[in-house]
Amino acid sequence: MADVEAELAKLGLALPRPAVPVANYVPWVVSGKTLYISGQLPVAEGGLIKGTLGRDMTVEAGAIAARTCALFILAQAGVAVGGDFSRIARCVKLGAFVASAPEFFDHPKVVNGASDLMVAALGERGKHARFAVGVACLPLGAAVEIDAVFELV
Amino acid sequence: MADVEAELAKLGLALPRPAVPVANYVPWVVSGKTLYISGQLPVAEGGLIKGTLGRDMTVEAGAIAARTCALFILAQAGVAVGGDFSRIARCVKLGAFVASAPEFFDHPKVVNGASDLMVAALGERGKHARFAVGVACLPLGAAVEIDAVFELV
Amino acid sequence: MADVEAELAKLGLALPRPAVPVANYVPWVVSGKTLYISGQLPVAEGGLIKGTLGRDMTVEAGAIAARTCALFILAQAGVAVGGDFSRIARCVKLGAFVASAPEFFDHPKVVNGASDLMVAALGERGKHARFAVGVACLPLGAAVEIDAVFELV
Repeated sequence: MADVEAELAKLGLALPRPAVPVANYVPWVVSGKTLYISGQLPVAEGGLIKGTLGRDMTVEAGAIAARTCALFILAQAGVAVGGDFSRIARCVKLGAFVASAPEFFDHPKVVNGASDLMVAALGERGKHARFAVGVACLPLGAAVEIDAVFELV
Repeated sequence: MADVEAELAKLGLALPRPAVPVANYVPWVVSGKTLYISGQLPVAEGGLIKGTLGRDMTVEAGAIAARTCALFILAQAGVAVGGDFSRIARCVKLGAFVASAPEFFDHPKVVNGASDLMVAALGERGKHARFAVGVACLPLGAAVEIDAVFELV
Repeated sequence: MADVEAELAKLGLALPRPAVPVANYVPWVVSGKTLYISGQLPVAEGGLIKGTLGRDMTVEAGAIAARTCALFILAQAGVAVGGDFSRIARCVKLGAFVASAPEFFDHPKVVNGASDLMVAALGERGKHARFAVGVACLPLGAAVEIDAVFELV
């Protein structure tokens, strides 16, 4: 994972240990040349980043939560390609859910935390399609959940 | 549909009659080797399973609603493969939306109702990536809506 | 884009200028024969169509917002295929998020505004799988956000 980890290190970041699903599903599936990553929650050193944007969390904190989800997405993708990120042709899509109070509208700024990280880690290969929406609540009180689709070489 | 129906019968379950979309879309689309299933609602014998988790529905009832969505997903998949489930290489992904009050956080337990059924029906082929999120409300007051992606042989 | 634009003209509609993402992502990605379109917001002549279904917006207005999202989806798809819509094999899937008060349940009628447009513009090729859910809020206060998957020839 040399290149990706080197790019992350420049930002003072590192790939986390991939999360183990707490249920009867798997963290990623490869179908043909497409890699699907399950929705990732933002688990930081202090535990799960919880909160609701527009209620008890700033946009900046939300962006860090989104970036943390992206780190887990990359970590899962790294496992899927056996640690060889050169096997990833590109990040195709991010699907981002932001726990939000009904009057919160700055989801793009929050989700940019993930989009920016993907481009920082993968360069041109990191540019992706995405959706970003506000939802009532997320598993375990998480502030953000993001799933992903990658294309493999 | 022999094997899948036999596995479901062990659980006292059966494939429902596939739901007909109430609008200008279709219940499934095959693109290459990928089968996309439209979002399925949980229609049981007593009608649509309505409710909001964290407000007027227990986690257990929510899990049954999610399982019911999964039955309809399998029923649609069965139609797509002409009743021959051996043509399904695997369930790739479930996208699960749970109608939730803002303080509800047990979405994984609810959606496990669907994930467990998929593995019960398809075995190893049933293991999938997924996301599970809480949303303000769902069509017609449904408690859960789940869409799916399958890989065909 | 002759045929699609002609069909839209019959409805008094035209393809809008594709929206430019306001962040570090791209409006569409082609992976193999699959075209992924980022979530599109409903920008009309008077600006972004804002509102919350079940609170301050009628179903009819919501359907127009959904139709507007679909116009932007088609506009982005048109760019992706260099203006040659004959390169689009079909619309595979729409993922529709409707900003909703918790007691709003008519999401299908709202999203039909998009589904009907897709079929009007593309005919049989426009028939798609879809999900339609209600969410707490959407970027910038938008009433509807829809993403899409197309299959290319």
